[in-house]
Amino acid sequence: MKILIIGAAGMIGARLTQRLLQNGNLHGRSVQQLNLADIVDPSVTGTSIKGTSVTGNGTGVEIHTRAADLGTPGVAQELVADEPDLIYHLAAIVSGEAEADFDKGYRINLDGTRSLLEAIRKRHETTGYTPQLLFTSSIAVYGAPFPARIDDEFHQTPMTSYGTQKAICELLLADYNRRGIVRGVGLRLPTICIRPGRPNLAASGFFSNILREPINGQSAILPVEDTVRHWFASPRAAVGFLIKAASLTPDELGPRCNLNLPGLSATVKEQIESLERVVGSDAVKLIHREPDATIRAIVANWPESFDTRRATALGFVAETSFDDIIKVYLEDDWSGT
Amino acid sequence: MKILIIGAAGMIGARLTQRLLQNGNLHGRSVQQLNLADIVDPSVTGTSIKGTSVTGNGTGVEIHTRAADLGTPGVAQELVADEPDLIYHLAAIVSGEAEADFDKGYRINLDGTRSLLEAIRKRHETTGYTPQLLFTSSIAVYGAPFPARIDDEFHQTPMTSYGTQKAICELLLADYNRRGIVRGVGLRLPTICIRPGRPNLAASGFFSNILREPINGQSAILPVEDTVRHWFASPRAAVGFLIKAASLTPDELGPRCNLNLPGLSATVKEQIESLERVVGSDAVKLIHREPDATIRAIVANWPESFDTRRATALGFVAETSFDDIIKVYLEDDWSGT
Repeated sequence: MKILIIGAAGMIGARLTQRLLQNGNLHGRSVQQLNLADIVDPSVTGTSIKGTSVTGNGTGVEIHTRAADLGTPGVAQELVADEPDLIYHLAAIVSGEAEADFDKGYRINLDGTRSLLEAIRKRHETTGYTPQLLFTSSIAVYGAPFPARIDDEFHQTPMTSYGTQKAICELLLADYNRRGIVRGVGLRLPTICIRPGRPNLAASGFFSNILREPINGQSAILPVEDTVRHWFASPRAAVGFLIKAASLTPDELGPRCNLNLPGLSATVKEQIESLERVVGSDAVKLIHREPDATIRAIVANWPESFDTRRATALGFVAETSFDDIIKVYLEDDWSGT
Repeated sequence: MKILIIGAAGMIGARLTQRLLQNGNLHGRSVQQLNLADIVDPSVTGTSIKGTSVTGNGTGVEIHTRAADLGTPGVAQELVADEPDLIYHLAAIVSGEAEADFDKGYRINLDGTRSLLEAIRKRHETTGYTPQLLFTSSIAVYGAPFPARIDDEFHQTPMTSYGTQKAICELLLADYNRRGIVRGVGLRLPTICIRPGRPNLAASGFFSNILREPINGQSAILPVEDTVRHWFASPRAAVGFLIKAASLTPDELGPRCNLNLPGLSATVKEQIESLERVVGSDAVKLIHREPDATIRAIVANWPESFDTRRATALGFVAETSFDDIIKVYLEDDWSGT
């Protein structure tokens, strides 16, 4: 099968690419070609694959990479011109940037996704092309006030432009699905933790920073109270969701194609207790409390917990303890000893 | 104040215009100018006002009418060029047509509404313009399966392109609201009953046909079982919602600006019983049962009842008996004696 990954240079996109190359197949179908697109030319982390058409990488998978801006007219048509069987659409302007740059957020997150759906529709109408389309949405489609646990039928009232754009794309995906143009699934990812790499300025960054930096012997700032509760899954679990979603049949999924995914509801206190158990008390001492009213106010509008019985029944799985989330980081990302 | 009505030639738009002219003011503010736009040049029913700029109609209100297609680039900018204080956006491609004509539905219902929001944003950024924007949405934003009563926090999973377009516009409205660009309210109207005029081919048409036609001595076809339950309000109540919504302050409304409105949950049997009580048993004899599997299947996916405590607490009111809905038709629309 031929797979297109839009947003392949991102943290999740690169790991998904690796996983597909390692497995060599997806639910019994052999992966023959991977088309990797992103705003910058994607490279395959760990396998050092770069360039526009690379074969002979030892996996038997033909890989094409390209730099492509989904917000540019005509790009979506080019990306689907060779009719990939499965499209992963992971590309997005992230929350903070979509909030700061109104036009850019709507251009990429809304118009870009719509242009992809429209490019598929044009082919569908001429050739009958009906690909799988797996789209990463976000729990940012929800806005406070929340029940203690958000269930599968809670309404979407986003409180950011990013969340608005994701919610709109979910609605479009469901309508194109219903009309038989694509076989789409929208995946509302939990907050990914522990994000590898350097601290960033995202309001949610501290959830990863307070673990990753101390693990690596660096200090980290905690801007909120220990009692703050949020909803998490590891990068490995996120890739697992993307793999699992490719197995869903239209009959299993039904008309409601946008799913809340399983995750772990944990407080900052529970995160820190796991850090102490898994890594040690010296690591905990590297966390410095510097309350930040702005970040506290933002985080107060974020979901704390979900009842994800639909996705769980469909077979999606995530970590069930924060210890496991830390161990996943140590196994998959940590370069120390 | 200056009021723009987009979709002024429609059934609700014409009645809203009449009401505003009759009242001469809106929540204590004098109505000085009415700008009436629609895809066809709007006329004011009952006051026989036509033309592009009419004054001296006895109401002291300056009226401008124009034919305008909101889906045409540049039209939205022209409509808001004189910065109306309040905009009623009632224009839409109806459900059946939006389902049959994918491009037209998205062009008018989604792109048209977005172009209006964008035209307001451009002015907002240069002049600080921040109008009230009252938008008619629909219970078509909901899709089966439903709980017995849909509450204010039930998710939007539309099963038509029309419902999808309305749900997307609600999300856009909320985001532009949150950013302080407009002061918007989205109003999810119940099915309007009794619609005046001739029977139409809309799947929901029979709910009105089986009352209006017998009242006027004509036969009507009932394509579903007596047990079918649906959610109704009269045209008069709908205009009442539009008037009431103009009084809401941002503090009253909060961030969730899209409202389920009160209505009456009634079965076809209850409709017919009311017809017999209010009009007589001869009228009931004019209803002919001709089951239609297609219409039954469509109607099976429609909401039956709502718990609208938020809108009720805000002061929105609708009929509480079907007898009253029939009496409203006799008072407002019936030309017989």
